Amino acid sequence: MAISPQIVNPKFTAAFVDTYGFTKEEYDLLLSYFEVKHLKKKDFYARAGTVCNHKAYVNRGCLRNFTIDEQGRERTLFFHFEDWWAGDFDSYYSGKPSACYFQALEDCELLEITKENFSYLESMIPKLGLWVAHKHTRKAMANSQKMMEIKTLSLQERYNRLMCQEPEIFNRVPLQYIASYLNVEPQSLSRVRKQIQCKK
Amino acid sequence: MAISPQIVNPKFTAAFVDTYGFTKEEYDLLLSYFEVKHLKKKDFYARAGTVCNHKAYVNRGCLRNFTIDEQGRERTLFFHFEDWWAGDFDSYYSGKPSACYFQALEDCELLEITKENFSYLESMIPKLGLWVAHKHTRKAMANSQKMMEIKTLSLQERYNRLMCQEPEIFNRVPLQYIASYLNVEPQSLSRVRKQIQCKK
Repeated sequence: MAISPQIVNPKFTAAFVDTYGFTKEEYDLLLSYFEVKHLKKKDFYARAGTVCNHKAYVNRGCLRNFTIDEQGRERTLFFHFEDWWAGDFDSYYSGKPSACYFQALEDCELLEITKENFSYLESMIPKLGLWVAHKHTRKAMANSQKMMEIKTLSLQERYNRLMCQEPEIFNRVPLQYIASYLNVEPQSLSRVRKQIQCKK
Repeated sequence: MAISPQIVNPKFTAAFVDTYGFTKEEYDLLLSYFEVKHLKKKDFYARAGTVCNHKAYVNRGCLRNFTIDEQGRERTLFFHFEDWWAGDFDSYYSGKPSACYFQALEDCELLEITKENFSYLESMIPKLGLWVAHKHTRKAMANSQKMMEIKTLSLQERYNRLMCQEPEIFNRVPLQYIASYLNVEPQSLSRVRKQIQCKK
């Protein structure tokens, strides 16, 4: 489905036009290679075992990114809300099958582009390479930060940080997935939440 | 101390000249902005609380990157052997004080460059931007992978992967730091090692 510029989240336009200085021609060219994709709640955007050859901008909705551990349990890695990009980065660059799933937690509207088309656009719009480089820098920083948090903070402290930094998670994501994201059993998360409420 | 090209690890030269196609002039310009720095075993290359304004190529030796958790315990994040880069990436890009330390596990020879000089070189040698982009992509991928491993694998499985992927860690790093890297008490790591030896 071709994209009408009116449906596009203004943050998408702002990122490319305001922050990276895309001209109108460059932005129109970029947009012309995206396609709109709709998912119903619980639909999968991607599954483990397949190679990720596309990425998608979350225009509306929310996805959960998870993997399956050695015991067959789901382990939540991230949540992708509006203005995030979804897709398995590792598989996209390595060409190896993905180890993770992306499932819609709400009805979603995605703006999707294939790897092939994105590479073509990078060769046509040098500023796009700069955008990619900055995205990767931020992703690497965010991942380092998360890894440090897992290694050094208590559950209560990690819960508090999540509340401050990403409050909408608590309005839109079932608690069992937040527990899985924080790497604890749902009962432990409930206990921490009760302790915090008692202190208030 | 200015750098003699003879002392430089051939992998450093190969990365820029062979992989990224630096001309002799570009490579010589690049090298002219690095300085040699020597550390004795246990010396610190960087400490938490200061802003990281430089990065260093490990020409010889090995560093441990760690942080201090809420209980005041050291938590090992990475080991940096020859042909790795050391420096707090988050602090380098955000300009905020670093939360981590880099300490020499052996006598080290580093090739160091300041952030200011590196930025200047990026403006002079466009290929260097490509090198940075690829480094960040690989770092983001490696961090995602490590985070997934922490979330999904047993200690034994993580130990086995480390043995396969980075065997030299076991020849050069004291076990207490490997345990801290794997996020377990040294006793648990010893138990896993014994179990594996019994199976052989």
